[in-house]
Amino acid sequence: MEFEELQELTEKMLELLQTKNFREIKRLINDLQPIDCALLLEELNEKDILPVFRLLSKENAAETFVEMTNDSQELLLTKFSDAELKAVFDEMFLDDTVDIIEEMPANVVKRIIKQSDAETRNQINEILKYPRDSAGTIMTVEYVSLREHMTVKECFDRIRKVAVDKETIYNCYVTDDKRKLIGTVTVKDLLLHDYETPISQFMETDVISAEATDDKEFVAQQISKYDLSALPVVDSENRMVGIVTVDDVLDVMEEEATEDISIMAAVTPSTDTYMEQSIWQIWKNRIPWLLLLMISATFTGLIINSFEGKLNLLSPLLFACIPMLMDTGGNAGSQASVTIIRGLALDEIRPRDAARVLWKEIRVSLLLAGCLAVVCFAKLYLIDGLAFGNLLGYGVYPWYICLAVSVALFATVVIAKMVGCLMPLLAKTCKLDPAVVASPFITTIVDALSLIIFCYISILIVTPFV
Amino acid sequence: MEFEELQELTEKMLELLQTKNFREIKRLINDLQPIDCALLLEELNEKDILPVFRLLSKENAAETFVEMTNDSQELLLTKFSDAELKAVFDEMFLDDTVDIIEEMPANVVKRIIKQSDAETRNQINEILKYPRDSAGTIMTVEYVSLREHMTVKECFDRIRKVAVDKETIYNCYVTDDKRKLIGTVTVKDLLLHDYETPISQFMETDVISAEATDDKEFVAQQISKYDLSALPVVDSENRMVGIVTVDDVLDVMEEEATEDISIMAAVTPSTDTYMEQSIWQIWKNRIPWLLLLMISATFTGLIINSFEGKLNLLSPLLFACIPMLMDTGGNAGSQASVTIIRGLALDEIRPRDAARVLWKEIRVSLLLAGCLAVVCFAKLYLIDGLAFGNLLGYGVYPWYICLAVSVALFATVVIAKMVGCLMPLLAKTCKLDPAVVASPFITTIVDALSLIIFCYISILIVTPFV
Repeated sequence: MEFEELQELTEKMLELLQTKNFREIKRLINDLQPIDCALLLEELNEKDILPVFRLLSKENAAETFVEMTNDSQELLLTKFSDAELKAVFDEMFLDDTVDIIEEMPANVVKRIIKQSDAETRNQINEILKYPRDSAGTIMTVEYVSLREHMTVKECFDRIRKVAVDKETIYNCYVTDDKRKLIGTVTVKDLLLHDYETPISQFMETDVISAEATDDKEFVAQQISKYDLSALPVVDSENRMVGIVTVDDVLDVMEEEATEDISIMAAVTPSTDTYMEQSIWQIWKNRIPWLLLLMISATFTGLIINSFEGKLNLLSPLLFACIPMLMDTGGNAGSQASVTIIRGLALDEIRPRDAARVLWKEIRVSLLLAGCLAVVCFAKLYLIDGLAFGNLLGYGVYPWYICLAVSVALFATVVIAKMVGCLMPLLAKTCKLDPAVVASPFITTIVDALSLIIFCYISILIVTPFV
Repeated sequence: MEFEELQELTEKMLELLQTKNFREIKRLINDLQPIDCALLLEELNEKDILPVFRLLSKENAAETFVEMTNDSQELLLTKFSDAELKAVFDEMFLDDTVDIIEEMPANVVKRIIKQSDAETRNQINEILKYPRDSAGTIMTVEYVSLREHMTVKECFDRIRKVAVDKETIYNCYVTDDKRKLIGTVTVKDLLLHDYETPISQFMETDVISAEATDDKEFVAQQISKYDLSALPVVDSENRMVGIVTVDDVLDVMEEEATEDISIMAAVTPSTDTYMEQSIWQIWKNRIPWLLLLMISATFTGLIINSFEGKLNLLSPLLFACIPMLMDTGGNAGSQASVTIIRGLALDEIRPRDAARVLWKEIRVSLLLAGCLAVVCFAKLYLIDGLAFGNLLGYGVYPWYICLAVSVALFATVVIAKMVGCLMPLLAKTCKLDPAVVASPFITTIVDALSLIIFCYISILIVTPFV
């Protein structure tokens, strides 16, 4: 649903609410897709949400509830009667229940658990025990299990019987009497064989699975790499405990990309959306990095202070080039680092490729640095010097100053690319998250190195002329 | 397959090749998953690839071929006999064929087209006509279509008949005699109804579809938002032309995230992986941005040059703080911009939220700036001044200099956050890609603004004391 449609619907809804036309509201909201219905409910004010929500059919109510923001879920849960709460959670798939439980405050969780039957309660507790971000936390325990000796007809009978309660029925899992996973069968396979064929004849025994404690990012990679629609999850003894479906993986991939992007921009990642986060949360996610980076910039200050006297004797114009030099170094470094970090995340680059990556970056950086140095020389001499220098009265840039800055720029770009490509590879080799060492850190290192280079090169090149 | 396994397999394969044990090689490679087999083939040297590839069964050959890199595909295609080429492409799904054709040089494309039958050729040409990055280019034309009057039994008969050739059979599409899409039926629905029920009784008529010319990112968003396993693609008259399956969307989402990350790091995005790109390609993707940003740094140089005389009279120590100030401003700005850009990409933030975002960032930035300013004052006075200043002999930082720098830092952080959150929102409102205005550009703007602020504040605060 586009934003305009939502706006129209909201207006219509507000009108209907004013005229108390609940019959029409009921028709309207039950016709919508759950996610759209959730978006519409979010637009209403707090006191209207519950009465409208109550007009949803039992199934729509559960599906819509799952799609709402955590804040609205919490609001509804505190207002629900026990019967309403039970009705919503009974219709829900277990993995969604667990997702919601993980986000709710303790008193709300207690009420949910109290309203569940004993079996569900056990399953919820099982899942809550898996480590954070593991396959166990995103899997669903509702899958179709079959036995080796069954025929196609028996399988279809079983699927028909259990289908309503299962999130996906197209991938079925063949287990032995110890619940160990021994094969998979798809509904497509079943459709392509005669009713009397035993599934042992055609089931796929070479099964790709994940352990419940595996990282969910690994699960996402497996599903994406092997183009699966679901991945079975087993315990350490290969006993089937659940499945992860491809739609859960879409969310994981979005989250992981967001996480990497946040870390690269020096923000502690959060699972809440920006609009959901309080200003204190945002502050907490940002301040440590800013402090750390500010304090590490002490080095650049020290370097300038130690060289200031010498440089100033040579030419005060040299100082004006420092920001350009540092910015270009920072940009060159983050181009390399971000490319490598993304390549590592997608498994397109591996630590063993370090030598090839370095050799590639050396050649690229020489090309880039050469081009930038030439343009920099021309820019300093013509624009900064002849044009603005005369205009603003600080004079032209002598050619030896242009040369010193260009040479320093050349060295800075080459070094920035080396640091930018090697740091993420080094982090990966040390089993650290490559994204953590991304641009801001690399910028700090490159800043310090480029300043030192600049000072020495300036002294070397400019001294004979003054 | 983990890297270690691949290494072991490669060694085993090289041994088998040396002893010319082709029977064992045949067994080995036909047992592997296509993607793993492709990875293994990539490890071999050029002359071995074709003989090993020929040992794959017809079906495995096609599936493995699809998973190989473009370079290896091209290598094989130039070496294939016409019969081999036809065999591989006949087994392939049409969307994979089109993907490969789009990457191959003209002479290879000609050979592929020549070996296809007339119908395939027409379909290929149809798909190649869709705009770049549109739904049409990622869809598959192999889907199951049903008619409204069919019963469940008739549907199963049809599915059984056509299943082998279809990429997915679980979502079936009900079309009228003008090929217009009028509903969808899942195999799950079919399994849950009696054989004699006509599908018109339960088919879903409220269909979510995309037009073939829609952007593939939109298709990915729809599939992710509505948790679909496939999305029907129609032409402008609602005639069914194909479907996009969720596994294609995984690739699109990865690509889009990579694209956004590249643009934020000031690199022109590329669909090739880093290792596949030549150094000239990498150079071409990076140099325009570095040049642009370097030239835009002219402003910072101008500002320093115009204020240099005045600042130097006040205290040479002030210069040493410029890099810290600029870096912190840049980091603060990119924290905000990257967060907002990602929120916009995931549709969690919309341009109409601008006022709320700004109000949030103002409060967050005041908290951050306050904290940073206090720490900065202490750091300058104690570390840079008392500790290192005495050690390196450039002296202590008087309190009024610490104050000037801290106040300038406060203002810089607040302004950086404002610029950082408003620029992406502005870009989005103007229908530009928000990622393009990300960190590097914002850094340039923030650098210039923070320098001007710093110079004026320094003059204001420090002048009375010298």
